[in-house]
Amino acid sequence: MDFYAKLERIWHTQDSLVCVGLDPDYDRLPEQLKHQPQPYFEFCRAIVDATAPYTCAFKPQAAHFAAVGREAELAALIGYIKTQYPDHIALLDAKRGDIGSTAEYYAQEAYVRYGADAVTVNPYLGKDSILPYQGYTDRGIVVLCRTSNPASNWLQARTEDAQPVFQQVAATVAEWNDSGQFMLVAGATYPEELGVIRQLVGRMPLLVPGIGAQGGDLAAVLKHGLDDQQTGLLISSSRNIIYAGSDDTFAQAAGEAAKTLQGEINTLRNKNK
Amino acid sequence: MDFYAKLERIWHTQDSLVCVGLDPDYDRLPEQLKHQPQPYFEFCRAIVDATAPYTCAFKPQAAHFAAVGREAELAALIGYIKTQYPDHIALLDAKRGDIGSTAEYYAQEAYVRYGADAVTVNPYLGKDSILPYQGYTDRGIVVLCRTSNPASNWLQARTEDAQPVFQQVAATVAEWNDSGQFMLVAGATYPEELGVIRQLVGRMPLLVPGIGAQGGDLAAVLKHGLDDQQTGLLISSSRNIIYAGSDDTFAQAAGEAAKTLQGEINTLRNKNK
Repeated sequence: MDFYAKLERIWHTQDSLVCVGLDPDYDRLPEQLKHQPQPYFEFCRAIVDATAPYTCAFKPQAAHFAAVGREAELAALIGYIKTQYPDHIALLDAKRGDIGSTAEYYAQEAYVRYGADAVTVNPYLGKDSILPYQGYTDRGIVVLCRTSNPASNWLQARTEDAQPVFQQVAATVAEWNDSGQFMLVAGATYPEELGVIRQLVGRMPLLVPGIGAQGGDLAAVLKHGLDDQQTGLLISSSRNIIYAGSDDTFAQAAGEAAKTLQGEINTLRNKNK
Repeated sequence: MDFYAKLERIWHTQDSLVCVGLDPDYDRLPEQLKHQPQPYFEFCRAIVDATAPYTCAFKPQAAHFAAVGREAELAALIGYIKTQYPDHIALLDAKRGDIGSTAEYYAQEAYVRYGADAVTVNPYLGKDSILPYQGYTDRGIVVLCRTSNPASNWLQARTEDAQPVFQQVAATVAEWNDSGQFMLVAGATYPEELGVIRQLVGRMPLLVPGIGAQGGDLAAVLKHGLDDQQTGLLISSSRNIIYAGSDDTFAQAAGEAAKTLQGEINTLRNKNK
């Protein structure tokens, strides 16, 4: 099954656009997990189990594991998602970007070593940094376009340009997309620009970080970002879900937070219909 | 010792601007290494020992190790460089780029887990993706500016802009550089643009990939890229050095290739004096 078909199916069967960001910090793990042999895996596995009914995707973030040498737990986590929740999207957030044979190795890392359905990549080096990912024809390629942080303006949205960089990225990735593998990262903190991106890319799905802690407005995101089928978005939330609780009910609290977000989104998109 | 002081010292004591890219491919390893427990480490260690007399820096490339789960060998390799050749620069080529706490974890990965002197980073997300690296005040931050590949033009050198993106990256990183930690990646395949970058950044050191296989012209690189002290460059070569030989004299062949490149550079920069 190709990547877009997998996305369409999970959006509809789950009736959810929620993606849970799995960004484990050792200091914030529940005490009872800290001394287990695989604390990151155990923490994330419990979050995955608790949130799966209300979500369509999981997004483990590579740096959180790599900083402390826990790649084996990242591999185990993605393997767990693919075994237990094979219809969910397992999206590796790695933001890789390099050229030639090095790009091939990064694609291998994401799709073969970890077995991810999709991976985030950086567009700065251009098409020859993206091509090796397209060789994995059933996987998704999520290109940074308009990131949610304020300091992204200096390059992505320079006002003196004929066309802001983020718009060129959106238009160019739409041109590349004959294989139906691409998504774009479009931050919730710039909902009107999210609408511009939607205009440029048609029904291409968008990964939207930045609601919650970063201040993105969920109603504005849905107004500007939904496609004509009231889908087309992976709305990602991490800390507001995974650290919703802190004691031995952390997983239950995460499940409730994911369910709440699913409900808020569905209420708003039903209004939009 | 701060990063620039370490660079200045090794340029002068070694009389070399040569940086060896350590990009191991399993298929290209000498047969006698393929069945050792740590083939990537053993291969790179032999290259490091053979080339150290003629070089100032080593640049292991992260994806080559990560694609096949060999992070432990990458850590052992950087540890070996720092123990045996503590005055050489150990530059991790990872091209990371993310924001907030995630950027902090990528900085931790490069500087703490691996202990690298410097790491390559991507500017697309802006200053808040770079700030966490500056917290490690004795380490280098090597920002992608003008990469050596042809497809980089679409974004880095858009001609319709008031100022091409790569020039803004150069000028902006020069503004950030009050701490004396920054370098820029400037590909050998665009030597005149390398000269523009040199004008914009003064004596900021530049990492120059793209000579050899990619077709960069060494004489033009030196003409446009050297600073007023006839230094200021890390000229990186990977495959032309590490695969100069293939049988049990691979390390000796690598040493000779590094020595040849050192000689070519020094002949040309003495002419420039």
